[in-house]
Amino acid sequence: MTAFAVHAVSGAARRGTLQLAHGAVETPAFMPVGTAATVKGITPAELREIGAHIVLSNTYHLWLRPGRETLVELGGLHRFMAWDRPILTDSGGFQVFSLESRRDLDDDGVTFRSHLDGSKHRFTPENVVAFQEALGVDIAMMLDICVKLPAKSGELEESVRRTTLWAQRGTAAWQRGATALFGIVQGGLDERLRERSARELVALDLPGYAIGGLSVGESRAEMATFTRFTAALLPETKPRYLMGVGTVRDLIAGIDGGIDMFDCVYPTRAGRHGRAITRTGEYNIRNAAYVRDDGPVDPGCSCMVCTTFTRAYLAHLFRSEELLGPRLLSYHNLAALASLMADARTAIAADAWAPFRDGVLGEAVAS
Amino acid sequence: MTAFAVHAVSGAARRGTLQLAHGAVETPAFMPVGTAATVKGITPAELREIGAHIVLSNTYHLWLRPGRETLVELGGLHRFMAWDRPILTDSGGFQVFSLESRRDLDDDGVTFRSHLDGSKHRFTPENVVAFQEALGVDIAMMLDICVKLPAKSGELEESVRRTTLWAQRGTAAWQRGATALFGIVQGGLDERLRERSARELVALDLPGYAIGGLSVGESRAEMATFTRFTAALLPETKPRYLMGVGTVRDLIAGIDGGIDMFDCVYPTRAGRHGRAITRTGEYNIRNAAYVRDDGPVDPGCSCMVCTTFTRAYLAHLFRSEELLGPRLLSYHNLAALASLMADARTAIAADAWAPFRDGVLGEAVAS
Repeated sequence: MTAFAVHAVSGAARRGTLQLAHGAVETPAFMPVGTAATVKGITPAELREIGAHIVLSNTYHLWLRPGRETLVELGGLHRFMAWDRPILTDSGGFQVFSLESRRDLDDDGVTFRSHLDGSKHRFTPENVVAFQEALGVDIAMMLDICVKLPAKSGELEESVRRTTLWAQRGTAAWQRGATALFGIVQGGLDERLRERSARELVALDLPGYAIGGLSVGESRAEMATFTRFTAALLPETKPRYLMGVGTVRDLIAGIDGGIDMFDCVYPTRAGRHGRAITRTGEYNIRNAAYVRDDGPVDPGCSCMVCTTFTRAYLAHLFRSEELLGPRLLSYHNLAALASLMADARTAIAADAWAPFRDGVLGEAVAS
Repeated sequence: MTAFAVHAVSGAARRGTLQLAHGAVETPAFMPVGTAATVKGITPAELREIGAHIVLSNTYHLWLRPGRETLVELGGLHRFMAWDRPILTDSGGFQVFSLESRRDLDDDGVTFRSHLDGSKHRFTPENVVAFQEALGVDIAMMLDICVKLPAKSGELEESVRRTTLWAQRGTAAWQRGATALFGIVQGGLDERLRERSARELVALDLPGYAIGGLSVGESRAEMATFTRFTAALLPETKPRYLMGVGTVRDLIAGIDGGIDMFDCVYPTRAGRHGRAITRTGEYNIRNAAYVRDDGPVDPGCSCMVCTTFTRAYLAHLFRSEELLGPRLLSYHNLAALASLMADARTAIAADAWAPFRDGVLGEAVAS
């Protein structure tokens, strides 16, 4: 049901196609995040228009609202959110471990209280896989333990031990139907633990592997180093997914390290707060400089927003706290990253990754 | 520059075309309101898709932000908001008189303080017309005095006197270029004052006339009675615009009284608050009944929202306070009124207004 083909490599960068139950994902790919079954402010038709091949949603949030029973009764997550291309759901591990005081962890799973109403819930490696399968998603993620950095060595080691244990149990529970299951490599900034985590998960021969536990407090250089280090531990024939990454520079660094898939709330969150993403740098549209600027948000962009509206209009919308502002800037930011990915794919296919990478990073530095 | 042709009448209801600088408006027409140069949450492309021929914006808000200088420098209001069909701007009279303690009225105009920053501004009949002309709108509204109901007779009489005085001065200042100028009939629920106001304004031979001072606190029956009474005082050859009306029943009553144009924030405001408009009644999408309802928002509607998403999904978006909820429900509500107007035009053209009216009102009552 899942097939991944690497068509070209350029340095460590890879150009591939991941065939899933609801269609093909051209890689490298950035996945817009729709935490609660909606990419904030954006319709499925717009996501297609932008060029998104796959979106991400969250087990933790969907489990609490609208809940499994409702989602199944309504025909699954694709039908619920009216999105017919692939969906990947995160396992909820990251969210549960962010709750801290509201959770109770043991070898068998994790018990936590809802941030919505305080109700008690329990995730196990098995029920998290079953939930995602019941939703009919294309890619389910294994329940894992993500540790914030900096972390104590003992804590990291324990997280790797349990992540492997849970991956073994999750794999045993997996139905091997239309839903592919990815493992998540943990181990923080510890080469030995990353090696152990990768080795133990690769032994399960899963359809794909994610790198978790990065972009959680470490420096950009550390993230790049450990992305490259960990990616090299993973099978060349399987897709590699770096979780929680979504700035222009980090995406370039990730692709450079051999990553095929990314997700991050950043482009929509930044968009809601007036922050415009361009390849040559970011800026806040609320700044006085843009009030009478009749140029597009990003002169290098051909998205609907940049070909229709001016910076002055966007500045006005944000200053007037108008709904259309966050909507339009979220759209542009997603389009900017989709277009970056498309150009990266073209560059890799032409074995011209290094000059493309250096061009983007050079412009980003100059801005 | 402005031409209005009535193609058909059916009872008092009229089917016409209003030709303006930026295109034709088929009447009866409902004008979506874009107070601050944006119909909240909706793009110009969507307004076209919905079938809006004209939108309304507000002199008061645009005067304060982004202001005349910026709007002129950026090429006018159409270019600023990227809408190439007709625009009507309200004169700001209604907003200024809502400020109450912040305004100071005399025969020459009105001085007021901005609700944004307390800065002092002055509207005169002349500068309000000049502002709208500078923005390049298709229809400018005369500065008028709108009195809340119930009102004392002396207050109403004074408002009619000043509204006429200002209309005479506004007409004298009007450039008679691409911007048409409409007068606003006042007089509350006083037949004698309505007659006087209409007579004095009609003497100015303006391109169109609005009925102001209704939908401001009176009963639905009083509004319908005075709409019909006042419409009959206006020239048959000129468009008639009932200000601030936008529920299904009030639109039907207005058309039945001979009205050609309407505007109201209601469909978008209701949409932002989870209230769905249908011809058979309104309901709140947050209600528990809709959480697992896989039908469309309005089974009688063929808009993008109703053909794509379920009530259950909209209920989820509103319960999760997701941006997409207000956006989608505002879209549907505007589409519902646009479709009501289109069907009304068809019914009038076929001289079948009465059965259409009774059908809609009968269903609305039954719901």
